[in-house]
Amino acid sequence: MRDVASDHDNRGITIDRVGIRDLHLPVQIRQKTGGAARVVGVFDATVELPHYERGTHMSRSVAILLNWSKREVSMHEMEGILREYQSIFSARAAHVSVRFKYFLDKQTPVSGLACQLDYDCRFDATIVDEDFAFALEVEVPVLTVCPCSLEIAEAGAHSQRGIVCVRIGATAGVIIWLEDLIPLVERQGSSEIFPILKREDEKYVTEHAFANPKFVEDVVRDTVLAIRDLPGVGWYQVSCETYESIHNHNAYAYAEGGGDAWSLR
Amino acid sequence: MRDVASDHDNRGITIDRVGIRDLHLPVQIRQKTGGAARVVGVFDATVELPHYERGTHMSRSVAILLNWSKREVSMHEMEGILREYQSIFSARAAHVSVRFKYFLDKQTPVSGLACQLDYDCRFDATIVDEDFAFALEVEVPVLTVCPCSLEIAEAGAHSQRGIVCVRIGATAGVIIWLEDLIPLVERQGSSEIFPILKREDEKYVTEHAFANPKFVEDVVRDTVLAIRDLPGVGWYQVSCETYESIHNHNAYAYAEGGGDAWSLR
Amino acid sequence: MRDVASDHDNRGITIDRVGIRDLHLPVQIRQKTGGAARVVGVFDATVELPHYERGTHMSRSVAILLNWSKREVSMHEMEGILREYQSIFSARAAHVSVRFKYFLDKQTPVSGLACQLDYDCRFDATIVDEDFAFALEVEVPVLTVCPCSLEIAEAGAHSQRGIVCVRIGATAGVIIWLEDLIPLVERQGSSEIFPILKREDEKYVTEHAFANPKFVEDVVRDTVLAIRDLPGVGWYQVSCETYESIHNHNAYAYAEGGGDAWSLR
Amino acid sequence: MRDVASDHDNRGITIDRVGIRDLHLPVQIRQKTGGAARVVGVFDATVELPHYERGTHMSRSVAILLNWSKREVSMHEMEGILREYQSIFSARAAHVSVRFKYFLDKQTPVSGLACQLDYDCRFDATIVDEDFAFALEVEVPVLTVCPCSLEIAEAGAHSQRGIVCVRIGATAGVIIWLEDLIPLVERQGSSEIFPILKREDEKYVTEHAFANPKFVEDVVRDTVLAIRDLPGVGWYQVSCETYESIHNHNAYAYAEGGGDAWSLR
Repeated sequence: MRDVASDHDNRGITIDRVGIRDLHLPVQIRQKTGGAARVVGVFDATVELPHYERGTHMSRSVAILLNWSKREVSMHEMEGILREYQSIFSARAAHVSVRFKYFLDKQTPVSGLACQLDYDCRFDATIVDEDFAFALEVEVPVLTVCPCSLEIAEAGAHSQRGIVCVRIGATAGVIIWLEDLIPLVERQGSSEIFPILKREDEKYVTEHAFANPKFVEDVVRDTVLAIRDLPGVGWYQVSCETYESIHNHNAYAYAEGGGDAWSLR
Repeated sequence: MRDVASDHDNRGITIDRVGIRDLHLPVQIRQKTGGAARVVGVFDATVELPHYERGTHMSRSVAILLNWSKREVSMHEMEGILREYQSIFSARAAHVSVRFKYFLDKQTPVSGLACQLDYDCRFDATIVDEDFAFALEVEVPVLTVCPCSLEIAEAGAHSQRGIVCVRIGATAGVIIWLEDLIPLVERQGSSEIFPILKREDEKYVTEHAFANPKFVEDVVRDTVLAIRDLPGVGWYQVSCETYESIHNHNAYAYAEGGGDAWSLR
Repeated sequence: MRDVASDHDNRGITIDRVGIRDLHLPVQIRQKTGGAARVVGVFDATVELPHYERGTHMSRSVAILLNWSKREVSMHEMEGILREYQSIFSARAAHVSVRFKYFLDKQTPVSGLACQLDYDCRFDATIVDEDFAFALEVEVPVLTVCPCSLEIAEAGAHSQRGIVCVRIGATAGVIIWLEDLIPLVERQGSSEIFPILKREDEKYVTEHAFANPKFVEDVVRDTVLAIRDLPGVGWYQVSCETYESIHNHNAYAYAEGGGDAWSLR
Repeated sequence: MRDVASDHDNRGITIDRVGIRDLHLPVQIRQKTGGAARVVGVFDATVELPHYERGTHMSRSVAILLNWSKREVSMHEMEGILREYQSIFSARAAHVSVRFKYFLDKQTPVSGLACQLDYDCRFDATIVDEDFAFALEVEVPVLTVCPCSLEIAEAGAHSQRGIVCVRIGATAGVIIWLEDLIPLVERQGSSEIFPILKREDEKYVTEHAFANPKFVEDVVRDTVLAIRDLPGVGWYQVSCETYESIHNHNAYAYAEGGGDAWSLR
């Protein structure tokens, strides 16, 4: 059988990224406390294709990921995966991203009930020649109370759910654990949120949130202050999007810093 | 060219619905005040296929809809479309649904600024032999303030955006205008919401909402009371889903009444 | 603290379903071979609320599910969960649905490589007084080759990915295993699909699919024939939706049988 | 009423972007042939907020867009909108993006039937001080036939729907019309696709596609060749994602060129 993907290509155009998208596989995320969380990963994986080659071999990509699906993964293992891509595809550059829901144990603030909350996370790793770069992304839901509404109204203030999205370019060799980053971020809204709240907890959350009214701008600034000096944090991109309860659209703020980010396409 | 869709089928199984899904076309929705709103429609359209026919002819369905895309549509025209399906497909039963974003003019409550808000709507029509049935569906965003949180907290109460979804089985011959139904529904939350609010408006909306705290159960019951005696309303299905600002999941309530609903698959 | 949810309600309207939506929790799905698959569940859970009660207590619902999240679940355990809802809420009726991605081991057809494919599944359970009903839903991706295109073209035929969705009302006491149902359904397209295919496998899949061209109507009829006599199958609803490669919309067919379905809202 | 958004901020952090997201408004897209297409726009709009100001005034943003919603918009008007943002917010930088479904008239290839196809489009504009930049984005559905499958199989080859996404940084003053760009892009798949095809058309499309088998890499390279010398094209980003009919994941290729792209967040 002739392999047409191996044909020579004359168009003179390098393909920056070629591979697979939205591949679902079980994945084991290494936990700070040891052991691994078994979650469902959604993988994108690509390599660079030189201008003189017509096509890549997509199935090799799935084979690599199927194999890694059986092992525990953290920032360190992502580098190993990328080196395997470089080797098997004879590629100068490779990129692997995996998105997953991650759960952390929490306790309700007054009654102390044990519960779990879900967070959308992403490991995003790139290698070009010998240069490995890793970005960690978390989406953390919070409650925000509007300072303007609170100031001007006789009673009350509108509040809403919002998502704080933090992307961090990790500096070499230092693992930023989800178990450390997420709780830090979720303290930057007007209040943390919980899957379960007894009435004494709901009273506490409401009062705590109304004592800490925050605009999306406030949440972004406080999150930047909270994370930028964490060990391992290089560049960062912080956004907050709130599902405004008085509108049918969202409020949004974004700030970046810590140096140049590589693209997170 | 042999037409394999016209082959005889021996499997003895009637196909209840066969046709197309997610066809995007411009659509002109007849307005109460005369004229038509030009919006983007997403169509599902099917017919029943007898057990002895192998396949339908999907392109005829698109041809019918392309044609109707040039004319103004209301509940009455939906019956004409379905009769055309019955005739062209020699079908006993046909079903057409179109979803679209609809805009209504509003005024901010204090400053009186003119603005527009968007609502997800759906016309859903079925014909079986001579029996035509029409359902109107609207999704209306509102603000809700939690009565429990308001009662127990020293200050404040959590609030959030919610969606009130109303599906109504129309009785023969009476058009229920979106211009009448939507404003009626949006008064059943703790407050209406607006795309734009000057500070005096935001003060009003906040205070009005905190004077009308409502659970999802309250919104559903008040909506049922508001709509069930409207001219033209047969059966109804009312739900409210709120994006709880203190949780990462939603609250939901649902009630139905007014007789048996035909299926709205 | 006064509990306003316990207030008497005078509006005279029963809430058919009230509770939570889109709660994410880890879940352990009991496997046919013993043991359990650890996946991410998305829960909807509601109870009926009598006309004389103002509100429900949503947090109790989350507490029940948090507890069950630690145990293995199959159709049998869903009945236990619902009885717990009835008891804790003093409710006549309760409904719990959980959606999850499920993975099955497969082998590529020629090279015999081990791999895994993902399927969207749902357990949907209702109890009213003593009557328990359970529905199993699977969405199975397949490849379809168009018989019309194959017949009329000199060379080739358009093909596309499609989703066969099967919902089954289970008869009392008989577990229908995902490990049995899914492989049965995925044989009803023109070909099964795989996450990985070496060239000899791709040759086989292509040739096998072109030897079995099927319309959406064919896939639905063949699936009905395949499943309706399975032990444990009561009513069934079968659909096939294909992402037509020659259009920007989808083809769709649907058939039901086996008796009256209870609503799967 | 005190305006807390106008408070002085001491945290020392510039907010790169603050404003609104997912605002739905009717929008009139200027057409090449004159006149305007009335479609539904989804707007994101932000300004830069200096480190010493606590908050922005979101409602001013909606007021600007409500106003522009009544006028015809092309690349040129986007600059006017941004200058209005700079002026009203006293902002150094502003960014407005609007996504919309756009329809183009087509004719079926053999029978010559008139029809319309829908394309996801986006205008994305940024201003920093005096520097205005505009990016045009289109997502064009095409049919691809796999060259590998065609080469190795005795009969047939798998095909699928794919999306070619083209983002172009426009050079100053030259409008790239959607009416020119989209037809150029949709010729780069194995075949164009249509909402309606009579059997003679389907025969033609099938045969034409099987005579032009293309990998995602081929589609990207051919699209780059087709667009990079168009008048008005500065930098470009071209991707193709195909919903592989033999897999439950997608194939993807991406190439960029023509100089540095500004970020399209």
